[in-house]
Amino acid sequence: MVQHPPTHLDASFAALSDATRRGVLEQLGRGDASITDLAEKFRMTLTGMKKHVGVLEQAGLVATEKVGRVRTCRLGGRRLEEETAWLEAYRQRWAARFDALDEVVEELNRKEQSDGRTQRK
Amino acid sequence: MVQHPPTHLDASFAALSDATRRGVLEQLGRGDASITDLAEKFRMTLTGMKKHVGVLEQAGLVATEKVGRVRTCRLGGRRLEEETAWLEAYRQRWAARFDALDEVVEELNRKEQSDGRTQRK
Repeated sequence: MVQHPPTHLDASFAALSDATRRGVLEQLGRGDASITDLAEKFRMTLTGMKKHVGVLEQAGLVATEKVGRVRTCRLGGRRLEEETAWLEAYRQRWAARFDALDEVVEELNRKEQSDGRTQRK
Repeated sequence: MVQHPPTHLDASFAALSDATRRGVLEQLGRGDASITDLAEKFRMTLTGMKKHVGVLEQAGLVATEKVGRVRTCRLGGRRLEEETAWLEAYRQRWAARFDALDEVVEELNRKEQSDGRTQRK
């Protein structure tokens, strides 16, 4: 059995699987914003936006701070390094796998051509 | 409002948010495997593994082919290019954001030191 150590990957990939949440991260990359700002920008109820921000906060992608009645959101401490590393490793395996298939196909083509020549002789 | 074109990102990030599914992709990067092989390797019921493979197939990350009674799984056509590009862009925004914060902190420190010197005079 392949062992998988517990990682943050489940939570962060799940957080990234929603277009609004990715949009919120893009927005916060441009500057901090209150939940109200975000709800307005994404034409969403405050409750809906709070839920999305909650998911991002749980995954460490957003940090929030409440001053008075305003909760301000900013990018969290996680740089998505592990996630990027996983994708990079996947892409390398993917390329290696498809290169190997290409070689098999080429080998078969060469064999077919050489068999064809043999038969024509 | 920030517009988000429909992308594959929702489905692929959701597919990647499970350790078993990531494990299956890693396994298929090493070689094709039947659902039965995968179920065994991940100590899971056939039904459970079929569900996971279904999610990966829907996201275009796995392709399956049934020959006789055996369904063989291999890596799908998607190289996760869009996903990698999204993460890269995020990391750049993240770095820019935290660099900007660092500058503010340094500026405050400099100001504090210079104020300190002024007060000591």
